[in-house]
Amino acid sequence: MSEQKKKTTIVLFSGDYDKAMAAYIIANGAAAYDHEVTIFHTFWGLNALRKDELVHVKKGFLENLFGKMMPQGADKMGLSKMNFAGMGPKMIKHVIKKHNAMTLPQLIEMAQEQGVKLVACTMTMDLLGLQKEELLHDIEYAGVAAYLGDAENGNVNLFI
Amino acid sequence: MSEQKKKTTIVLFSGDYDKAMAAYIIANGAAAYDHEVTIFHTFWGLNALRKDELVHVKKGFLENLFGKMMPQGADKMGLSKMNFAGMGPKMIKHVIKKHNAMTLPQLIEMAQEQGVKLVACTMTMDLLGLQKEELLHDIEYAGVAAYLGDAENGNVNLFI
Amino acid sequence: MSEQKKKTTIVLFSGDYDKAMAAYIIANGAAAYDHEVTIFHTFWGLNALRKDELVHVKKGFLENLFGKMMPQGADKMGLSKMNFAGMGPKMIKHVIKKHNAMTLPQLIEMAQEQGVKLVACTMTMDLLGLQKEELLHDIEYAGVAAYLGDAENGNVNLFI
Repeated sequence: MSEQKKKTTIVLFSGDYDKAMAAYIIANGAAAYDHEVTIFHTFWGLNALRKDELVHVKKGFLENLFGKMMPQGADKMGLSKMNFAGMGPKMIKHVIKKHNAMTLPQLIEMAQEQGVKLVACTMTMDLLGLQKEELLHDIEYAGVAAYLGDAENGNVNLFI
Repeated sequence: MSEQKKKTTIVLFSGDYDKAMAAYIIANGAAAYDHEVTIFHTFWGLNALRKDELVHVKKGFLENLFGKMMPQGADKMGLSKMNFAGMGPKMIKHVIKKHNAMTLPQLIEMAQEQGVKLVACTMTMDLLGLQKEELLHDIEYAGVAAYLGDAENGNVNLFI
Repeated sequence: MSEQKKKTTIVLFSGDYDKAMAAYIIANGAAAYDHEVTIFHTFWGLNALRKDELVHVKKGFLENLFGKMMPQGADKMGLSKMNFAGMGPKMIKHVIKKHNAMTLPQLIEMAQEQGVKLVACTMTMDLLGLQKEELLHDIEYAGVAAYLGDAENGNVNLFI
């Protein structure tokens, strides 16, 4: 029966709040329709998986710099448009609350509850100097081969 | 017979003139090859569907602000690269004319003539405060469930 | 037998170093797993195919301006995030070297060696005034019809 399940596989490359929202809304929708869903986080998309507290890990100079400059967790991400030095995300979060929609951290939590497979790309974790201790619990770690294994039999494949 | 038709389903998330052009060029091409084509406009991509005249509707403060700041219709959208405070779109439109290519508003018109299904995402319309009166005629309104229904049986699924 | 080969078809629209890296890493991975792989370069993604030396060709004023302003080859492309006026790409190339990963020009070379089909979109070449003499050798030239022909039977379709 699991063979007949539809499959949705999303590469989340972007580190923008709005694009990550779109990815997680589609993922949660697909999971609700009983798809087998994977979000493969790579490059800036990894920041959606960062814990929002400061985690002390030993890093090289550049890796430390990347870690400091990148948003620390989903709630700190900016918008792809109309970011206005951080005002845009405040506006979006305000209308989300007003319309009883879900914030990005809530969407991620829901995805985990629904069994969406959240994968962190180990190659780009290396490049950006992100370590497992810095990321959320219950994440899987894999590379492009695992992504292709999921995607090549998929129904909905997206790069966001 | 309609069961055997190929299906192209595009999420247009971006509010950039060049990315929307790419979406509509692929959509029109697919329609010409007899695909069943849907463009699902969400977030900033909704701006491609806005009428270019000012439509007076009652809105909250933030929704009004979003409405004012976002491009009012396809022709007003900026470029994803080399926008140069609006010079980039002028340059692109100049070379489009020179090479007898189609502008974005022309591409959208052609898509409607070819029966491409243009959908506006109701959830993000709510968030950005866009109302039906502000959007083009002959648009469908739907949410992520309808998108997944189209995409899960699709041949070409893209997120732009 | 070739009928049963899996197919990966990527539209590379973006002119960013990091997004082009992602496209070529997926393409090389898919080629290693014996997929038939095509990267269709359009708009700013065409810059990844530019030769890194200056090629003298006759152009109109705007086309010349575009040519001068756009990155001349893969190595000159900027980052989609944290570009910092060119410091970002230097940082990324530094960590790529440190982790023995491949730079974008190396990934493109590998793709050509693995038989990944690299296509330049002729319509956007016209718009941006790019000529065949300015692009790498062993590139194919085609339009949206050829793209759809590849994509409609594909397993993994991505727009990057």
